[in-house]
Amino acid sequence: METHTVKPIGVVRSSLKDRAAAPRQGDEGAPAAVIEVLPEVLQALVGIEAGAELIVLTWLHEADRDVLQVHPRDDLSRPLTGVFATRSSDRPNPVGLHRVTVLRVSDGEVEVEPLEAIDGTPVIDLKPVLTGRR
Amino acid sequence: METHTVKPIGVVRSSLKDRAAAPRQGDEGAPAAVIEVLPEVLQALVGIEAGAELIVLTWLHEADRDVLQVHPRDDLSRPLTGVFATRSSDRPNPVGLHRVTVLRVSDGEVEVEPLEAIDGTPVIDLKPVLTGRR
Repeated sequence: METHTVKPIGVVRSSLKDRAAAPRQGDEGAPAAVIEVLPEVLQALVGIEAGAELIVLTWLHEADRDVLQVHPRDDLSRPLTGVFATRSSDRPNPVGLHRVTVLRVSDGEVEVEPLEAIDGTPVIDLKPVLTGRR
Repeated sequence: METHTVKPIGVVRSSLKDRAAAPRQGDEGAPAAVIEVLPEVLQALVGIEAGAELIVLTWLHEADRDVLQVHPRDDLSRPLTGVFATRSSDRPNPVGLHRVTVLRVSDGEVEVEPLEAIDGTPVIDLKPVLTGRR
């Protein structure tokens, strides 16, 4: 099948500097972080305000895309499981999915929490959490 | 920033044949559909069973990637809004996010519902819905 090209729309700025230090999920103690949005897509932020619930999609650029099975949470007592049944960051298309609350939007920056992605992670999309019709 | 290449891991087979016929969201009457998973990533399905709640990520291949603002739900009475504050399929990286229930897994196919993506839409990832720790 045809491949497609992902163009980052921003980048994560975080106190988390490497994968070893990062929580596995946002609700496991991840900090607030800033998404620096690229100037060419700033118009796409209009309507996002502090307090909003967003889904942030990232490209987990340090992932191993050849991994198809893992022991969940690196626990060798658990059986090998397909990555599509886990949230492993190692997977064929390493898209990270993060549910966050917006703390601030200003000067091309969106501050959010919690975000377990490490500093320098490309951001590929932002979407509102759906709650009823919009 | 560096771009990245998305390689589809499967394709949607659906009774929905064009965008005009497709509901905007899965909970607006979308049908069941089959995800045909490519042979080279079948191992990544191990652990997915009927009844599981999944997030399906698609690449909305017919989207207009240059659109940064829309009238939500094409309602001209609503103000122009940044696409990152909407679920518009027209957006810089047209990744579709669909929460589904698995009906069947067999022969490299994952039948799910509801799925508002049209027939032929590339699938780029499957993830479990997180409910507590795993």
